[in-house]
Amino acid sequence: MQPHGVVTPEPPYIAVIFTFRLDRKNLAEYEALLKEINAISADQDGFLGEEGLRLEDGRGLTISYWRNMEAVASWQRHAAHILAKKAGREKFYLSYSLRISEVTRESVFER
Amino acid sequence: MQPHGVVTPEPPYIAVIFTFRLDRKNLAEYEALLKEINAISADQDGFLGEEGLRLEDGRGLTISYWRNMEAVASWQRHAAHILAKKAGREKFYLSYSLRISEVTRESVFER
Repeated sequence: MQPHGVVTPEPPYIAVIFTFRLDRKNLAEYEALLKEINAISADQDGFLGEEGLRLEDGRGLTISYWRNMEAVASWQRHAAHILAKKAGREKFYLSYSLRISEVTRESVFER
Repeated sequence: MQPHGVVTPEPPYIAVIFTFRLDRKNLAEYEALLKEINAISADQDGFLGEEGLRLEDGRGLTISYWRNMEAVASWQRHAAHILAKKAGREKFYLSYSLRISEVTRESVFER
């Protein structure tokens, strides 16, 4: 998972909120696919960044940021994404929620 | 932090995305304030739920869900929230980003 703290442009932009619980039986295979799929998604037009956390017990939360809805839709139609989604449902995730949202305001604090 | 997997209503609703890095010097005090403030926010009109994860190194990510922008604005004007924000900036957070977004689509998967 990417380091924490993505620098995003002035809103509006899109946040895709993905909360999941992994099946720990297939973790090694999941990591390999994730690495591949992250390399491809990072290369998509309109991809702004991603941040997330994962706990040892398999729970995780990832947020990816995108320039606009077209960029999200285009990624969702990408063959690699479709295959990864299928594998995710069959083997890797016990459950997940995917939420697509438009960021309208952002504030940043640094001490 | 709340258990993972908040059940939200049909979109649209609001997601407040909070990514942070804690100053580990003041963790005990932070935990105490967090407990208090979470009890108050959970009691606000329009609060739908919260989920998040935190790592040992102080990085964390919390998403709270709200019925609409009015509910978010009302919570941000709440005295308890204003005091907590001040304490957060002075003592608890090294840095944070706060993003307010409108969720327009949601899908849920359970194996």
